[in-house]
Amino acid sequence: MISPRCAACKYLRRRCPSDCIFSLYFPPNDPQRFACVHRIYGASNVAKILQQLPPNLRAQAADTLYFEAHYRIQDPVYGCVGIISQLYQQIHNAESELAKTQAEIAFLNCNPQEEVQPIEANYSNFNNLLPNQYCPPSTQNSWFN
Amino acid sequence: MISPRCAACKYLRRRCPSDCIFSLYFPPNDPQRFACVHRIYGASNVAKILQQLPPNLRAQAADTLYFEAHYRIQDPVYGCVGIISQLYQQIHNAESELAKTQAEIAFLNCNPQEEVQPIEANYSNFNNLLPNQYCPPSTQNSWFN
Repeated sequence: MISPRCAACKYLRRRCPSDCIFSLYFPPNDPQRFACVHRIYGASNVAKILQQLPPNLRAQAADTLYFEAHYRIQDPVYGCVGIISQLYQQIHNAESELAKTQAEIAFLNCNPQEEVQPIEANYSNFNNLLPNQYCPPSTQNSWFN
Repeated sequence: MISPRCAACKYLRRRCPSDCIFSLYFPPNDPQRFACVHRIYGASNVAKILQQLPPNLRAQAADTLYFEAHYRIQDPVYGCVGIISQLYQQIHNAESELAKTQAEIAFLNCNPQEEVQPIEANYSNFNNLLPNQYCPPSTQNSWFN
């Protein structure tokens, strides 16, 4: 029985060699995964990145390349850097919230009869951040330069 | 006077045309910037991404492409996805810290004579995160799949 070609070799319309660098990380049942990385990096650049790594790290590298390519296709301007920017914004909000809480505790220590309501965290839905959400960076980040 | 070639045309050893897609975003005084994106994406993929965008968005796209390429070279396994993972970890830590603070406030409301010390935020150094720091993702993230 002939083993099926991997998604990369199918996409590239070539025979899938036994030592194919793509086959373990781009299975035939997920053609979109290879199409994504091919569109952003090109097959030869993906192959180069994978080949320079020891085999035990290649699966994770293929995953992160796919992740970045996927977000670059969704958002050609910011790619997954938009997520980083959004997370920084949420951390900034959390820092403000925490400073407020610290002030409340300080107030409570000076006025022990007062009652302070527990604060509502405004960053409790991080797990919903990634799929289909995006907020463009609000400021020019100095870490690009 | 002949205007100098941009970093991309210098790198590619070609004449820099007046409508060069790279010239505004890859100035000759920063050859490393183009070398980075060329190594990860290839010149034609970068050109394609820039060309499909309106001119007012291309500078930001070039910046984020450079940012991602830079981190992919530094860390061929995780690239800038490692930063996202690290930020999620810090947010998780902050959520735990906030839950602790809320519990302290609740305790204080029930025992108004007790004194609670303001908590120390353990995520106050985000601004130092990006340059030369990296923490590999501690868990397999479901958002790759």
